[in-house]
Amino acid sequence: RINEQRLWDTLMEMGDIGGTEKGGCNRLAGTDLDKQARDLFVSWCKACGCTIDVDKIGNIFARRAGTNNDLPAVGTGSHLDTQPTGGKFDGVFGVLSGVEVLRTLHENNIETPTAMEFSVWTNEEGSRFQPAMQGSGTYVGRFDLETELNKTDVNGIRLGDELERIGYLGEMELGSRHMGAFFEAHIEQGPILEDEEKAIGIVRLGQGIRWYNIEVVGRPSHSGTTPMHLRKDAMLVASAIVTEMNAIALRHENGLGTVGFMQVWPNSRNTIPGNVKFSADLRNPKPDVLLTMHEELVTFCKEIALNHGVEVNVDPFWYFAPVEFNASDDVKAATEKLGYSHMDIYAGAGHDACYMADLVPTGMIFTPCLNGISHNEAEYSSPEECAAGANVLLHAMLEASER
Amino acid sequence: RINEQRLWDTLMEMGDIGGTEKGGCNRLAGTDLDKQARDLFVSWCKACGCTIDVDKIGNIFARRAGTNNDLPAVGTGSHLDTQPTGGKFDGVFGVLSGVEVLRTLHENNIETPTAMEFSVWTNEEGSRFQPAMQGSGTYVGRFDLETELNKTDVNGIRLGDELERIGYLGEMELGSRHMGAFFEAHIEQGPILEDEEKAIGIVRLGQGIRWYNIEVVGRPSHSGTTPMHLRKDAMLVASAIVTEMNAIALRHENGLGTVGFMQVWPNSRNTIPGNVKFSADLRNPKPDVLLTMHEELVTFCKEIALNHGVEVNVDPFWYFAPVEFNASDDVKAATEKLGYSHMDIYAGAGHDACYMADLVPTGMIFTPCLNGISHNEAEYSSPEECAAGANVLLHAMLEASER
Ligand SMILES: NC(=O)NCCC(=O)O
Ligand SMILES: NC(=O)NCCC(=O)O
Repeated sequence: RINEQRLWDTLMEMGDIGGTEKGGCNRLAGTDLDKQARDLFVSWCKACGCTIDVDKIGNIFARRAGTNNDLPAVGTGSHLDTQPTGGKFDGVFGVLSGVEVLRTLHENNIETPTAMEFSVWTNEEGSRFQPAMQGSGTYVGRFDLETELNKTDVNGIRLGDELERIGYLGEMELGSRHMGAFFEAHIEQGPILEDEEKAIGIVRLGQGIRWYNIEVVGRPSHSGTTPMHLRKDAMLVASAIVTEMNAIALRHENGLGTVGFMQVWPNSRNTIPGNVKFSADLRNPKPDVLLTMHEELVTFCKEIALNHGVEVNVDPFWYFAPVEFNASDDVKAATEKLGYSHMDIYAGAGHDACYMADLVPTGMIFTPCLNGISHNEAEYSSPEECAAGANVLLHAMLEASER
Repeated sequence: RINEQRLWDTLMEMGDIGGTEKGGCNRLAGTDLDKQARDLFVSWCKACGCTIDVDKIGNIFARRAGTNNDLPAVGTGSHLDTQPTGGKFDGVFGVLSGVEVLRTLHENNIETPTAMEFSVWTNEEGSRFQPAMQGSGTYVGRFDLETELNKTDVNGIRLGDELERIGYLGEMELGSRHMGAFFEAHIEQGPILEDEEKAIGIVRLGQGIRWYNIEVVGRPSHSGTTPMHLRKDAMLVASAIVTEMNAIALRHENGLGTVGFMQVWPNSRNTIPGNVKFSADLRNPKPDVLLTMHEELVTFCKEIALNHGVEVNVDPFWYFAPVEFNASDDVKAATEKLGYSHMDIYAGAGHDACYMADLVPTGMIFTPCLNGISHNEAEYSSPEECAAGANVLLHAMLEASER
């Protein structure tokens, strides 16, 4: 069993890096705070005798040798970046569960048949740079390295430059680790485990995600002198699309639709907005339903552009297809061995494990979080709930290593 | 008659201060560019022998002595600040028509019975600081001086500090100029004069304006894991209010409704917005209709807050009641004397003259602008159109001075 108090202490120590007044965390990818968090992870892994490598998109791999290092390693990992108003658990819990597994093996001098790998993936959140799971997606070959390094934040700063600046633009080739299985522990971020009073969620599926950048190009003009019928109001059209995103979600079982980001130009109260840029996020566990939702959005945008005499540019720049986790049974076996209550569940959020599933048998372990709230400073998971997830991770990794 | 080419040249020279690639102007109130524009105005007025005073809210008064300086002066003026994507004419045309009147009097050694006053009013646009017509409104006593000097822009910078920094926080008491009449020339900013093929609009009325700061407080949470029925989506509610603003405007004759400014928090694409702040601008020439529009907005905000379980805070921080211009007949007489085609019109925008009408008989002269477009870099008025307005201003001022 892992050490519950020690796991909790590392969570709180890491949470102080970018910690907010309301008890949350603001540690965007590629910032100085991201560097501090990465440095702390590296120091903890080195203290347990790991070797460290950093790949070309900044993913960190800490390796603890096994008895037979020719065998493929067993991996775990998640991310240390957070939302601007994020919590202390999303991603961090997975990384630090790995550190806790490492420390448990180290202090008990446990030799594992295969090596164990503990990883930190770059920009999983997709908040500062898009898309989400950028580090893992690039690692497994879904995204082009140069394209991703050239991605910029809202201020035009390149991811590649930020990684170099904070010392995490590495040399290791993408996809080059020899792994035989991968596990990720993560808070559920939703209300289901709490509602059902289960300690562990065996994640069977990661739902589909479609991300868009939408731009409405109208015509800026005076709010006091432009008659309603002569307006090309980009804000009005953007608002109609926000409303439609909600309607699309409600029309489809398990559909979700969100506009989380918006920039208005020139953003002056007596000028009718000439340009509004915003994000759209559609999700569904079924790929065919998600495709229908996508088509509805595109059609709506075309029609409203015609009706209002404005331009609506829809860039569907990211599609993440639903993924099945094929090492879920390892997670289930470990959970049952440890005697935790559990249920099958699907992941509403994207996770690095979703991309790792491209390369190796992968499993995810969910733990409950208070009121199902995540991407919020109030995000919380109790020491016991965290410990249960880390214990399952330890035993799933040990079983995979022994097999 | 004024000198058309010289007027045009000053417009182009002034327009270079903050001039944009697309031929517009970005010269927000209180910025270094505002200082440059003010300095240029002051140097032009001094070259014609004027004395200069600056009042406690940064309004500039340039005075040309008359034959009898005990008589109340005749004033004119407008503003030099622009929208972030504004044109070269809005406000500037009025100030520089004044300068052209001054130069015409000066070079012809015309002595006027009363003194003539040429003014520049602080922050008429209301884009960087609110409300609009802040300088003239404070001068006439509608706003409290300290309150206005303490107003901050989106970055928290005080108007008072900016005025001090650029050297235009003066000592002159508010409301202390002795004036007997005030005229302001301005581009129409709307399409009516152009449609009707009239050179001059005799402005009979300034329509009513109500400005609001609205804040929706929801709950930030994850876009991929928060079921639709558990959301408190501040963006969705804000969008519904934007749509309703448009509907309110369409329900009332001559109604206008605009949301030009919006800030989303935390503005991350996979976090449901927890807070959206935006502006609302309602206008109508009839005060009772504008009041009904106001009540509809307030009621809608209350209802939608209840329906969505969010907080909607509506701050109706500025009401500008419709104003009648009681020196319009002077403008009409000057226009007819000069033989320009004309029509009566009402002002859709607020103007400094609207507040000056509190203190003295006031008239406004409108000139056409291309396609009725203003608060847009493409704003344009031809040299002939500008000259007609400045000629009417000259003769309206002369007649008022002689009376
Ligand atoms: N785990 C998590 O919050 N990932 C962010 C990517 C997304 O699902 O939007
Ligand atoms: N003239 C002008 O554009 N004034 C700005 C104030 C307003 O009407 O919104």
